[in-house]
Amino acid sequence: MTTDKFWSTMAKRAEPYVPGLQLNNPDIIKLNTNENAYPPSPKVIEAIKDAASKDLQLYPSPTADRLKESIANHYSLSNDQVFVGNGSDEVLAFSFMAFFEPGETIKYPNITYSFYPVYAKLFDIPFEEVPLNDDLTIEPESLFQSDGGVIFPNPNAPTSLYMPLASVEAVIQANENKVVIVDEAYVDFAEASAASLVNKYKNLLVIKTTSKSRALAGLRVGYALGDQSLIKALIRMKDSFNSYTIDRLALAGATASFEDKDYFNQTTEKIVATRERATKQLEAIRFDVLPSATNFLFIRHDTENAAELYEKLLEKNILVRYFDVPLVNNYLRVTVGTNEQMDELVHKLKEIIE
Amino acid sequence: MTTDKFWSTMAKRAEPYVPGLQLNNPDIIKLNTNENAYPPSPKVIEAIKDAASKDLQLYPSPTADRLKESIANHYSLSNDQVFVGNGSDEVLAFSFMAFFEPGETIKYPNITYSFYPVYAKLFDIPFEEVPLNDDLTIEPESLFQSDGGVIFPNPNAPTSLYMPLASVEAVIQANENKVVIVDEAYVDFAEASAASLVNKYKNLLVIKTTSKSRALAGLRVGYALGDQSLIKALIRMKDSFNSYTIDRLALAGATASFEDKDYFNQTTEKIVATRERATKQLEAIRFDVLPSATNFLFIRHDTENAAELYEKLLEKNILVRYFDVPLVNNYLRVTVGTNEQMDELVHKLKEIIE
Repeated sequence: MTTDKFWSTMAKRAEPYVPGLQLNNPDIIKLNTNENAYPPSPKVIEAIKDAASKDLQLYPSPTADRLKESIANHYSLSNDQVFVGNGSDEVLAFSFMAFFEPGETIKYPNITYSFYPVYAKLFDIPFEEVPLNDDLTIEPESLFQSDGGVIFPNPNAPTSLYMPLASVEAVIQANENKVVIVDEAYVDFAEASAASLVNKYKNLLVIKTTSKSRALAGLRVGYALGDQSLIKALIRMKDSFNSYTIDRLALAGATASFEDKDYFNQTTEKIVATRERATKQLEAIRFDVLPSATNFLFIRHDTENAAELYEKLLEKNILVRYFDVPLVNNYLRVTVGTNEQMDELVHKLKEIIE
Repeated sequence: MTTDKFWSTMAKRAEPYVPGLQLNNPDIIKLNTNENAYPPSPKVIEAIKDAASKDLQLYPSPTADRLKESIANHYSLSNDQVFVGNGSDEVLAFSFMAFFEPGETIKYPNITYSFYPVYAKLFDIPFEEVPLNDDLTIEPESLFQSDGGVIFPNPNAPTSLYMPLASVEAVIQANENKVVIVDEAYVDFAEASAASLVNKYKNLLVIKTTSKSRALAGLRVGYALGDQSLIKALIRMKDSFNSYTIDRLALAGATASFEDKDYFNQTTEKIVATRERATKQLEAIRFDVLPSATNFLFIRHDTENAAELYEKLLEKNILVRYFDVPLVNNYLRVTVGTNEQMDELVHKLKEIIE
C-alpha cells in the first residue's frame, strides 16, 4: 500500500501530464503522437554512430555551443539568443520557472497543449484559460493585458490552427511588461515562425522542438529563441537544475539535422502534400477537417461519435488520439503519416462508417 | 545590455552551479570531473549504434521499463522501486521537489556536493550545513533529527571518504519521519551500497549515476532506488516536468551497461587498483591523501599551496579541480585516470615541487 507521508506539498498538488500511448505493437499504424512520417536524415544517423564511438565516458558540453550555433545560423540569430534543452517540454518547464510568478495570473487558451496547466499547478502559478472563438481559432485579444504573462502554441494543438504573424505580434505588443511565449512545436508545417520577431521584442520567447519536423522525437532536443536576457534566465534555471541536459549523441544528431537543410525541406514538403491530400479524402467521407498548419489533422464526422471511432480504429490497428474534454470531445486528432498510411486510415474509416 | 526585468523571483534568487571545465584540448590530461578512465563497454556502443538506426522519429518509452528492469535486477529490487532520470543531477532536482519543503530545514554536510545549496535556493528550502569532523569525515549524529530531511553523498565529495553502512543506517533511523537521501555517485568504488537497505526503510532514497563507474557521463542516465511511495512521487515530478527525459540512445546504452557485468567489474577493479597505486606514489612525494573510496583522490601537500599547484599543473597540461572554499582550500581533487596518466601526474608534480 502506497503512502504519501513523505511527499512534499509540491508532490501532492502536482497533476501530472499523461502522454499519448507508446504501443510496442509493430502491426499498429501509429498516428497518435504527431511523430514524423519519415526517419531523420541519414546524416543524423551517421553523426550519432560517429559520436557513439567517441568519449562517451566524458561529460557533454554543458553549454552546447556547437548545437546553439547551428540553430542560431538557421534563424539568423546569435548564439546568445538560443537556449537548448531536453525536448521542448523541458524548455517549457524552465520557462514557467523563469518568467511566470506565483500570484500573477497567466493566460492561455482553454483548448491547448494540456501540459500548460500541469506546469502551472506544479509551480503554483495562477492561470486563466481564455475561450477559443466558435471556429476554434484563438482570439488574439483574449490574450491581451495579462497580469503574469501569456503562453500559446502556434499553430495551436490539438486544433491544428495557425494564428497569422500580425496577430501574434499584436499579442506581444499588448503584453509589453510580461513575457509572451509562442510555442511553435509545429510551425515548420505552417506559414511563418515568430523567430523573425525575436530581434524586435524583448518580451518574446519562441519555443521549438526537433521532435516533429526534424523527426527526432527519440532524441529529446528542444530549443528557445529570444532576447539575451530571457535566454540568460533560462540558462540560470538549467544550471540550477541539471548542468548537462543533452547527451553527446543528441547534441551530435541535432546539430547534423540543422546542417542538412535539403532533407528537412523535402520531408516537410512531403508531409504538407500528404496533409492536403488526406484532408480531401476525409472530407469526401463527410469529415469536417480543420485547416491544418501542422503535421496532424483535427477531424469531426457528420454523424459518427468520435470516442467510438477511436475504439473501432484501434480494433483495426490504427491508433489516433481522442481527448475527452469539453468543446472538442467529438474530434479525433490524427497524425499525418505517409500517403500509404493515410490511405489505410481512410479505408478503415470507410469500413467503420458504412 | 542585459536586463532582468522579465525574470521571476525564482530566476532572480537562483545561484547556479558551476560545473568543472570541459576543455576541448586533446593534449590535456583531464582529471577534473571524475569521469571514468576507460570507455564504456563495447556492448554499450553496439547497442547505441543499433538504436540509432531504429525509429529515432518516435518518442522513447516515457516509463523506461526495460532500463528499470535491468537496474532492478542488478540490485534485486522490483521495477517500482526504481526511478530513472537524465543524470543523477536531474534525479536530485526532482527529489528536492518531491521530498523537501519550504519552511522545513534540511541538513547536509558543510563540505559536500556543491549542487545541494543550489537546489535548496532554487526551491526555497532552508538548509543547515553541519560541520564535518576534523578528519573531514561526516559525523553521523550531526545528521540526526532533521526538521525537513537529510541529504549526503556516500562516499562524500570532494573528500572521497566513505561512511560505513551501519552509520548510514543510524542516520536513516534517526530521521524516521523525513526522507534521507544517500547520494551514491561513487559507491561502486567503495565497500557497500545502501541499496541493500531499501527494503528495510520507507524513508530511504538512494541516488546513483551511470556517469562514473559505468563510464557513461556522456549519456546522462541517473537513477534512484527507494520505497514504491518515494518512487511514485518522483514519477509525479517527472511527469509534471518532462514526459520523456531519457532518449532512445541513452536508454539502449544504459540498459546494455547493466547487462555487461564483466566489463563493469573489470574496469572498476582496475580503477581501484590504480587508486591505491597512485595514493602510494603521491604519499612518497609528501602529499596527504585521504583514504579514497571513490575514483578520485583528495590531496594536500606538506608545503605547497594547492591553488598554485593547480595553476602549475594546468600549465603542464594536467587539469585537476580546486575548490576555493573554507576548510578544503588547500586540497586538490584529482580524478583517478589510467596508470599512465597517474604516472604522468606524479612526474609533473615532482617537477613542480622540486
